[in-house]
Amino acid sequence: MTAPLQSATASAPATVANVACGFDVFGLAIREPADQVTVARADTPGVTITGIEGDGGRLPLEAEENVAGVAARAALRRIEKDHGVKLTLTKGVPLASGLGGSAASAVAAVVAVDRLFDLNLSHQEMLACALQGERVAAGYPHADNAAPSLFGGFVLISTGEHELVPRITSLPVPDGLACAIVRPHVEVNTAEARGRLPDSIPLKAAVAQWGHTAGLVAGLFTVDYELIRSSLVDLIAEPVRKDAVPAFDAIKRAALDAGAMGCSLSGSGPAIFALCESSDVAATVCARMSEALAAEFGPDYDAFVSRVSPAGARIIESVPR
Amino acid sequence: MTAPLQSATASAPATVANVACGFDVFGLAIREPADQVTVARADTPGVTITGIEGDGGRLPLEAEENVAGVAARAALRRIEKDHGVKLTLTKGVPLASGLGGSAASAVAAVVAVDRLFDLNLSHQEMLACALQGERVAAGYPHADNAAPSLFGGFVLISTGEHELVPRITSLPVPDGLACAIVRPHVEVNTAEARGRLPDSIPLKAAVAQWGHTAGLVAGLFTVDYELIRSSLVDLIAEPVRKDAVPAFDAIKRAALDAGAMGCSLSGSGPAIFALCESSDVAATVCARMSEALAAEFGPDYDAFVSRVSPAGARIIESVPR
Repeated sequence: MTAPLQSATASAPATVANVACGFDVFGLAIREPADQVTVARADTPGVTITGIEGDGGRLPLEAEENVAGVAARAALRRIEKDHGVKLTLTKGVPLASGLGGSAASAVAAVVAVDRLFDLNLSHQEMLACALQGERVAAGYPHADNAAPSLFGGFVLISTGEHELVPRITSLPVPDGLACAIVRPHVEVNTAEARGRLPDSIPLKAAVAQWGHTAGLVAGLFTVDYELIRSSLVDLIAEPVRKDAVPAFDAIKRAALDAGAMGCSLSGSGPAIFALCESSDVAATVCARMSEALAAEFGPDYDAFVSRVSPAGARIIESVPR
Repeated sequence: MTAPLQSATASAPATVANVACGFDVFGLAIREPADQVTVARADTPGVTITGIEGDGGRLPLEAEENVAGVAARAALRRIEKDHGVKLTLTKGVPLASGLGGSAASAVAAVVAVDRLFDLNLSHQEMLACALQGERVAAGYPHADNAAPSLFGGFVLISTGEHELVPRITSLPVPDGLACAIVRPHVEVNTAEARGRLPDSIPLKAAVAQWGHTAGLVAGLFTVDYELIRSSLVDLIAEPVRKDAVPAFDAIKRAALDAGAMGCSLSGSGPAIFALCESSDVAATVCARMSEALAAEFGPDYDAFVSRVSPAGARIIESVPR
């Protein structure tokens, strides 16, 4: 039993869901950006959101409509006594960017509540709480952002035939693996992007795709960059979603020509990620992707390089009572 | 340079294609049964089949219509001079059983020719020759039997977006992994079984399936039997093919109840395999599967246990010139 706390602050990283070949089954955490949530003990039960920064005033302050609020409340419900918290959220992950911002907020909230009340929730329990928050944002509680934001690294989400809870498997991350990311300043609505997907897909494409997910896992375990490169293909979501993102084809071509192992939409976009063997390669790739984006779209974008992060959400500050 | 040979005999093992979750992308080799091919130098060019045993007289002796003959000829074409061989085939793998018999014949023929003429073909070259033979049998040259018969072990076949040749990846095989196999004496025509498959499948099932192939690979690398168990699911081929195989549902239930990690059709059947942690478990599983089959189908079947074989095709005899 550690000393009781007055407040705890957690940071949870942005994530790249799908990772080209693994629609709805793969996600990876990057070092930055990240969301931060501070929770402090309050006299009234439940969650009160006392401040949000970095959202341009767009996120709801009502706890039951806010991803972090709902996730924090789900974690509080694990305590028998009626506890309450004041919550402040600092958005580092841009809104509706395809970088798992709502998942990062939800995960940070749960991790902070867990620490504040010394709950020692398991990763699976924390994930379940975070997904309750995610449901508010996406209308569809899927773990491909929340799981990597919580666990860190490269994560597989799979569900056996009669299993009720998704199974989270941490995959090895080769040293140095990095993402180049460009983000045109347009917004993609996740629910709308999901609506673009067909209800059924050609068997032939599906077979190719499950060969790719298997190949990517084998490539990560054996650090076989050629196999990873060969596996980073998306025949399913990318073709129907890429039109919503300016200059997608030119950016992807630039990334691959500059040495990226693969390039696709991050989640449903608009962020585009390129997975690279090292930060050095990613820096070059990022420059070429930026040029391609600027040439067709103008300067209204941002671009950065981030290592794949073996670490997930973590406590960055705690204040004793 | 080794001493010239008069003849060479190769053995190539039976295989289980698909392995539940990996339709068209996974295959594994078992220790037995196996096909054997002997090739001896002949004065006339090309391939002359001088004998076939174990086929009940059903396989063609014409080299250009015989899987082993076509594969041997493809390998002979790699030599500049016009060489010829006499070929004898001994079938250990039952015909049309779903255990990769035609692939085993083709692989054994190529490996024997390679040795006889000291060709030192690469595995990829040998696979290409074997697939020319497979085309005669299946009308569809797919590597999910030939690759594991040649390479041994557990094999992933994947093809990148712009790649012309399938990529073969050997996956680790946990020590002791074994199959229980029952085979009702009915025949399933591979081409007809393929025709039962739909042209398209629900996206939701496809997503589950590529989570399973990824999960199986991760489970093999980490020797996580629970993850392997959770991943051995086939939502695609098994549901539309199982009706062709007597008592399938009862056999599968018996296998899983007796401790198998997974159970499905081997290739397109009629053989049914159950993957087990050890030969001991597989022996019990095999007994329960046999009972279930006998109860509904009577005694017209065979059943056996075989370890997953880390070794593929090999030379078992060579006679100096």
